[in-house]
Amino acid sequence: MKNIAIVAKPHADNIKGLIESVIDFLSRHGINYLLEDRAASVMGVEPASINEIRELSDGAIVLGGDGTLISAIRIFDEKEIPILGVNLGRLGFLTETRIDEIASALKSMISGEYSIEKRLKLCSEIYLNGDVTFNASVINDVVINKGALARIIDIELFVNDCFVNKYRADGLIISTPTGSTAYNLAAGGPIIYPTLNNIIITPICPHSLSNRPIVLDADVIITMKVLNNDEKVFITYDGQIGKRLDKDEIIKIKRSPYYINLVVPKNRNYFSVLREKLGWGGN
Amino acid sequence: MKNIAIVAKPHADNIKGLIESVIDFLSRHGINYLLEDRAASVMGVEPASINEIRELSDGAIVLGGDGTLISAIRIFDEKEIPILGVNLGRLGFLTETRIDEIASALKSMISGEYSIEKRLKLCSEIYLNGDVTFNASVINDVVINKGALARIIDIELFVNDCFVNKYRADGLIISTPTGSTAYNLAAGGPIIYPTLNNIIITPICPHSLSNRPIVLDADVIITMKVLNNDEKVFITYDGQIGKRLDKDEIIKIKRSPYYINLVVPKNRNYFSVLREKLGWGGN
Amino acid sequence: MKNIAIVAKPHADNIKGLIESVIDFLSRHGINYLLEDRAASVMGVEPASINEIRELSDGAIVLGGDGTLISAIRIFDEKEIPILGVNLGRLGFLTETRIDEIASALKSMISGEYSIEKRLKLCSEIYLNGDVTFNASVINDVVINKGALARIIDIELFVNDCFVNKYRADGLIISTPTGSTAYNLAAGGPIIYPTLNNIIITPICPHSLSNRPIVLDADVIITMKVLNNDEKVFITYDGQIGKRLDKDEIIKIKRSPYYINLVVPKNRNYFSVLREKLGWGGN
Amino acid sequence: MKNIAIVAKPHADNIKGLIESVIDFLSRHGINYLLEDRAASVMGVEPASINEIRELSDGAIVLGGDGTLISAIRIFDEKEIPILGVNLGRLGFLTETRIDEIASALKSMISGEYSIEKRLKLCSEIYLNGDVTFNASVINDVVINKGALARIIDIELFVNDCFVNKYRADGLIISTPTGSTAYNLAAGGPIIYPTLNNIIITPICPHSLSNRPIVLDADVIITMKVLNNDEKVFITYDGQIGKRLDKDEIIKIKRSPYYINLVVPKNRNYFSVLREKLGWGGN
Repeated sequence: MKNIAIVAKPHADNIKGLIESVIDFLSRHGINYLLEDRAASVMGVEPASINEIRELSDGAIVLGGDGTLISAIRIFDEKEIPILGVNLGRLGFLTETRIDEIASALKSMISGEYSIEKRLKLCSEIYLNGDVTFNASVINDVVINKGALARIIDIELFVNDCFVNKYRADGLIISTPTGSTAYNLAAGGPIIYPTLNNIIITPICPHSLSNRPIVLDADVIITMKVLNNDEKVFITYDGQIGKRLDKDEIIKIKRSPYYINLVVPKNRNYFSVLREKLGWGGN
Repeated sequence: MKNIAIVAKPHADNIKGLIESVIDFLSRHGINYLLEDRAASVMGVEPASINEIRELSDGAIVLGGDGTLISAIRIFDEKEIPILGVNLGRLGFLTETRIDEIASALKSMISGEYSIEKRLKLCSEIYLNGDVTFNASVINDVVINKGALARIIDIELFVNDCFVNKYRADGLIISTPTGSTAYNLAAGGPIIYPTLNNIIITPICPHSLSNRPIVLDADVIITMKVLNNDEKVFITYDGQIGKRLDKDEIIKIKRSPYYINLVVPKNRNYFSVLREKLGWGGN
Repeated sequence: MKNIAIVAKPHADNIKGLIESVIDFLSRHGINYLLEDRAASVMGVEPASINEIRELSDGAIVLGGDGTLISAIRIFDEKEIPILGVNLGRLGFLTETRIDEIASALKSMISGEYSIEKRLKLCSEIYLNGDVTFNASVINDVVINKGALARIIDIELFVNDCFVNKYRADGLIISTPTGSTAYNLAAGGPIIYPTLNNIIITPICPHSLSNRPIVLDADVIITMKVLNNDEKVFITYDGQIGKRLDKDEIIKIKRSPYYINLVVPKNRNYFSVLREKLGWGGN
Repeated sequence: MKNIAIVAKPHADNIKGLIESVIDFLSRHGINYLLEDRAASVMGVEPASINEIRELSDGAIVLGGDGTLISAIRIFDEKEIPILGVNLGRLGFLTETRIDEIASALKSMISGEYSIEKRLKLCSEIYLNGDVTFNASVINDVVINKGALARIIDIELFVNDCFVNKYRADGLIISTPTGSTAYNLAAGGPIIYPTLNNIIITPICPHSLSNRPIVLDADVIITMKVLNNDEKVFITYDGQIGKRLDKDEIIKIKRSPYYINLVVPKNRNYFSVLREKLGWGGN
C-alpha cells in the first residue's frame, strides 16, 4: 500500500487528534495519505479531490460511525480497496474497530496481514420512458416511501419480470444483508448474515398483514412501479440521498458488480456484534 | 327528526341515483334534507352551508366509504347527531349498512327505532410558547411522522406529565379504538373493541424493537415533543388533514367531550366485520 | 393491621436473614405474623395453615420475584388484603419494592399511609356436559396450547356467546392488563396499563397472519372450544398450574369479583418500570 | 423411467378412482408402478416394501397435500428421484399440480420433458456424550420446543462452534427455505425463495423482543443445547415425527447432501402460489 485515504466525521470529539495520530503513523511507515473533504476541513488544509482519491488510494481508513463509512463508500465507488472502519464511541455494524485498536489495525493493513469481508452492494436505476434519469448504488438499502402527508401508496413489484405483488403500504425497503440490521429490522425484516448474496424485500406498514418480508437471491432484477401518480412519493438511498419520484418513473434494482471490502478486526465475530447492538441477553 | 343531512362521495358509481332515492324517501316521509357540498355538486344544486348543517340537521346519512364518513364527522363537529353510514361496495368499519338496506335503515332512523354506538373522538392541540397554534379532532388517529427524506426522528412522550419514553422511530400513532383497525393495525398495534374508552400509542418502525404499542385509559393527557428541529416533521389527522410541525411546537392530545353516534344496523356484529375485513378464515 | 402473612421464595440468597428482619420489625411494632409454608421451612418452624392465613391476615409481605407473588395470590384467594411485593434482586412488574426499602414500606403499611393499586383477576371454569370440572383464578393469564408433539390446533372463541373466530394456532392467551407484559408480550400482544379493566385475546403463532390480538372490556364472558379431540391440548394458569383438557371440555373465562390490592411504592411510576424491564433507551 | 412409486393420502375423496386412473395411465405407457403402504391399502392389495421402493423407483407421484408429500420424502430418503406432487383440492406449496393436470404432468414426466426444482433438506443428529442417539432429515424444519406445561426454556445456539445467543423462548425453529412458509412464517420469520441455499433460525415467542429471525448460509453447522434439564423439552421433525429430549442431549443440524427434486408444473410461478396461499390482494 502506498496511499491511504482518510475520511472523518467532522464534529466528533477529539477528531483532530485522531487524524493527526493516523497521519503520524502512516508517515512513520512511509505511506502517503489523502485527506477527504471532511478530514481536510478538520485539519484546515486543502482536501484531495474525489478523482485523486479514486485514482490513487489503495486503502482507506474511516473515523466515524456507520453513517460516515456509508458516505465514504460512495466516494470510492467502483474501487474495491480495503476499508478500515473505526467507531468513535459506540460499536457499529460497519465500524467494528475501536479507537484503541487503530494502531494494530493499521499495522496489519499496511503489512497485508488482514482479512477482508466482501459485502454486497445494490445498483438502482430510475427509468422514464426507457431512459435512465437517475442512478445510485447502496450498501444498505433503497427505500421507496410516501410523503408524510400522503396516503398509503400502491407499488407493483416484479422479480425478473415476473409479477410478485401489488403492495399497499407506506413504502418498500429493498435491502442488502448489510442493511438487514438497519431500516429493514425496524420494519419487521429478518437479520441476514452480512456476507450472504441475498436481497430482502420488506414492506413498510403494509395494509395486508400477510405481506411479509421476502428473501431472494442477489442475482435477481427487481422492478417497481408506483401506481399513485397524484401522491408525492420519494426514493432514498442508504437514508442519505433522496429525491421525489416523477410520474411514470420505473425503478430497477440489481446487484452491483463491485463489492465493498471491509477490513475485519481479528477475533471478529458478527454474532457478538449482534448481541451487543441489539441488547440480547440484556433482559 | 325533521332535517337529515346528506353527505356523498362525489364520483361513486350511480351516486346521483342513490341520492335521489334517499331524497325521495325522506320527502315521502315528510323529512327535510340538507345537501352537503359534495352531494349538492352531484345533484347540480346549491349546497347547504356548514352552519346550516350544524344548526339544523338532527341526523345524517353518509353515502360512501369510511373516508367519506370521517370527513363528514368533521362537518358535524360537536353535534352528537345519529349518523347512518352506507358503504357503496365494500363493507367498511364505519359504514356497515349496505345499499339494499338503506330504506329499512332510514325507516328505523326516522321512527327512532335504532341503536346507537358511541365512539370516542380525540382532540389534539398544538402549542408554541404556550399558545395554541392549531387544533383538530379525530375519529381514527393523530399521526406524527418524519418527512420522506428525513432520517429517524426522536419523540418524547408524556402521559399526564409523566415521562414515558423517547421514541426513535419513523413516527407515532395516537389512535382511538375506532382507529385501531386503520393505520395502527398496519404498524403492529392491537385491535381494540370500538366502543371502549382507550387510547393506543403505537410507534411506527421503532428503532428499539421492545417499543411495543401501549393501551391507556381514554382519560389521560398525552404530550409529545419532537427533538429533531432540523428535520421535517409532520402531523396528520385521520390521514386527511396534515401540516408541518414548526420548531419547538408541542402536541397535546386528550379525549373529546363529544362522541360520534353511529347508527348500528340490526343484527350488527363487530366480530363478523373483523372476519370479513381482515380475511379471517380465508386461508 | 394486626396480622401480616409472610411469603418467601425458599432458596433465595440470604432469605433467612430477610425474614428475620421482617419478623423483628413487625414484633417491635406489635404486629403478629403468619409464616406461609415456604417461609416457615426457611425458618425451620411450623407454618400457618392456609385457613389461618386466609382468616387472620390483614396484610401480606412477599419476599421473592413476580412468580412468588403470583403463587401467594392464590393463597389469599378472595381476601382483598394489601400485598407488599419485595423483589430480591431484579425489579419485577409486581414486586417493585427493593430490599433496602422494606422498612419504610412496612412502616407506611402498618400506619395505613400507603397507596393501593387494584389489579384485575380472571376466573376460569372448565365445563364438561354442563358441569364444572375445574376452576382457577389468575392474575396474569389463562393459556390454552397444544402439546409439544401435536400439530396446530383449532380453537373456537366466543365473546358473550357471539362467535369471534376459529383460531388455527399453537394456542391462545387470555390475559389481564397485569399479564400483558408477560407471555402476551412475547406472543405479539400490546402493553395494557395495568390498572385498566380489559381482557386481551392473543393467539400464539396463528396460521393466519391477520389474527391479531384483540382488547376487550373486562365485563365480557369468553368461551372457548378446542376442535381437535385427537390432539393433546393443555390449559395453564399463570404458567404455574396446568392440566390436560379432556375431549369436549369447554372453557369459560370472566373477570373475578375480587381485585388484587398491591401496595404501591411512593414515587412509583409504571412507565419507569417498563423502561427498565424492557430495556427502552438501551439501544 | 421404468418404475414409478405411487403415494396417496388414504382417506381423501375419490382417492381410489384417482389411483386407478394413474395406474391405468402408467400401464398404457408401459411403466411399472409400486404402491406405497397407504395407496396399497386404498386399493386393497399388498404394498411394495420400502426397500423395493427405494431400489426400484425412478420417479414418484404423490396424491395428497403437502403433508403427504413430506411423509413420502422420508421414504425415498437419499434417492434424488423426481417427485410429482398433486394436490387433491387446495393448492400446496409442494403439491402444485392440480388433479386435472395429472395426465399431462405424467406425460411430461415419463417423456423426460419436465423441469426439476431442487430443494434443500436438513440433517439433524442428537448426541449424548459424543454418541448419536437419533437422526432424521427434514424438508421443512426441525423444531425444539417446551412441553405444554413447562415454562420458558433456555437454548444455547452455536453456528460453526461460534456462540450466537442464549434464547429464552418457547422454542426454536430451524427451517429450510421450503419450510419458511410453514411454522417459520407463523412465528414471525421471513419468506425465503424456496430454491435458495439458506437456513433460518426463528425463535418461538422469545422473551427478548430483539431476538429476531436470522438467515444463514446453508453450509453452516448449527449446534443447540437446552439448559433446562428439569423441564420437558421436545424435538419435532417436519411436524410429523417427535421425541422428548433427554438431559444433556445436544442437537446438531446441517444441510443434507441430497436434494429433493420436485417436478415443476409448466408456467409455474412461486409468487403466484404465495399470492394465492397467503391471500395477497384479497383485502
